[in-house]
Amino acid sequence: MAVEEGRRVTITAIAQEAGVSVPTVSRVLNGRSDVAPQTRERVEGLLSRHGYQRRGSRTTDHASLIDLVFNDLDSPWALEIIRGVEEAAHAAGMGTVVSAVHQRKAATRQWMQNMRARATSGVVFVTSEVTPNLHDELRRLDIPVVVVDPSGIPAGGVPTIGATNWAGGLRATQHLLELGHRRIGFIAGPKRLLCSRARLDGYRAALEGAGLPVVEELVQQGDFYHESGFAGGTALLDLADPPTAIFAASDQMAFGVYEAVRQRGLRVPDDISVVGFDDLPEARWACPPLTTVRQPLAEMGLLAARTVLRLAQREVIESPRIELATELVTRVSSAPPKG
Amino acid sequence: MAVEEGRRVTITAIAQEAGVSVPTVSRVLNGRSDVAPQTRERVEGLLSRHGYQRRGSRTTDHASLIDLVFNDLDSPWALEIIRGVEEAAHAAGMGTVVSAVHQRKAATRQWMQNMRARATSGVVFVTSEVTPNLHDELRRLDIPVVVVDPSGIPAGGVPTIGATNWAGGLRATQHLLELGHRRIGFIAGPKRLLCSRARLDGYRAALEGAGLPVVEELVQQGDFYHESGFAGGTALLDLADPPTAIFAASDQMAFGVYEAVRQRGLRVPDDISVVGFDDLPEARWACPPLTTVRQPLAEMGLLAARTVLRLAQREVIESPRIELATELVTRVSSAPPKG
Repeated sequence: MAVEEGRRVTITAIAQEAGVSVPTVSRVLNGRSDVAPQTRERVEGLLSRHGYQRRGSRTTDHASLIDLVFNDLDSPWALEIIRGVEEAAHAAGMGTVVSAVHQRKAATRQWMQNMRARATSGVVFVTSEVTPNLHDELRRLDIPVVVVDPSGIPAGGVPTIGATNWAGGLRATQHLLELGHRRIGFIAGPKRLLCSRARLDGYRAALEGAGLPVVEELVQQGDFYHESGFAGGTALLDLADPPTAIFAASDQMAFGVYEAVRQRGLRVPDDISVVGFDDLPEARWACPPLTTVRQPLAEMGLLAARTVLRLAQREVIESPRIELATELVTRVSSAPPKG
Repeated sequence: MAVEEGRRVTITAIAQEAGVSVPTVSRVLNGRSDVAPQTRERVEGLLSRHGYQRRGSRTTDHASLIDLVFNDLDSPWALEIIRGVEEAAHAAGMGTVVSAVHQRKAATRQWMQNMRARATSGVVFVTSEVTPNLHDELRRLDIPVVVVDPSGIPAGGVPTIGATNWAGGLRATQHLLELGHRRIGFIAGPKRLLCSRARLDGYRAALEGAGLPVVEELVQQGDFYHESGFAGGTALLDLADPPTAIFAASDQMAFGVYEAVRQRGLRVPDDISVVGFDDLPEARWACPPLTTVRQPLAEMGLLAARTVLRLAQREVIESPRIELATELVTRVSSAPPKG
């Protein structure tokens, strides 16, 4: 604790002497790229002149851990991310501490307390809202953070790793248009997530690019889970003029659509085409195998872990916003419309 | 390191004075039940007389962590276990370190080294072979271990948590017999795992109970993964006299059978019944929804974590071998045979 106090005073002194804010010194220490080169040079000079001891040098003192925080551990999606983070952490001789905070404040506080006790080297949040309070506390503790699939643009230049959600939404919809579909339903992900919005905008852009209107009744609200795909699929099939294809913004929702189609005695893709988003392992095994937009989830986890480790080593991260490419995987569930 | 040495010497001294082996003293320290009451009393007396400092008392010194070790993180099955362990660990203010060792010696050694550095409180292995060497080293480090779904009976009274695999295999086969099936195919899990053998024996016991022979060509070897279910299902469908029902020893293999059935233009359950084992979330969403034997995977993880925490607290574990009940979940994929 005394050491912690001592170090904080030094950062303040350096900020004063450099004529910059404390967060700016912190950004230099964290290797962030959002600092002007001259400022960085001045701060670096003062840090080294005053012999400021960087946290990177005490890595041998504490357990070498990365914290990986999910809202929930209830989708095969999460396992893909864990796999990537674990691989990168293992290669670096680190352990991966997996937690679920269930979007509950109490659980987040408890995690924070546990995480402090174990002196983690860095934190990877997955679609968790990094609230300003949480963010401030992590910065004060000098613990680097990376966010995977951020729900919004996080404050303070926190690096984020995502996928090209807009391009994926565009490509999936274009694929259905190319097959000849003109009435294409869409089941959206939760509104609070940036990735949901990007996929919806990609769907809209493809329709508009083909000179088609965006029909309100064809867009259903979902939450990425199976049940909401079933509900959205049912609502779309019940329309007076139902769509000939449905694009669901997650594979799990696409499987829900499968079930809605099956319960009506219809068949995919003979009666209706279905396209998903994620390319979970299950997409390959589904019956029929699902055409979907591949997100490189394990690679996203891997890159997030490597980035947080680089930040812990005080390396400069070139680009604080990385989107890995999505890719359309064409399988059996999409075909030209009937007749 | 000096402390570690000092403690080991003390255990040896106590073993000599008590006239018992070092492992026996270790078993008393670990709260194992496989020690005679008089021996336990004598050792406990000496430990307290010599003021032996128990590791339980130093929990505040180290990061509160449970290590959870898988061979691979490639099945939705793994996520269910993680969910249970994380829940129990979180409730106890502990972190869950998830690792995959890929059945490779080098990866296991690396994990061991990392795990020592982070001073974990206990280890939960999942279907990993706990080799005698590994076991000895963990005992020497005085780190409690629990094995989930052991590949064999582990040495040295290590507690295990499993499911009633034999009863589940029996019940699934009885269900198909009750529907009127007489030629029932079986796709087995990997031979090296005890749970695979138990499911196969349950299948055999049900057939024999119904006065039916166990036909060799109806039993295919799989490895729990989707591809082996597809291969086994294909081989069974290709028989001159194919079965009217297939019981696969994992849900993933059952989905592989679905694909084999689909590729022949046949339908489940109209042309052939399929039953799985696990009840992964996907079983409910599969098309058609899969009849399967539910293993309480999250509960198994929860109980494993609680047990390892109790061992870390030097509590006595009443029963070192626990099997949680499996349960048949009847959905759409099983029906009476045609004709």
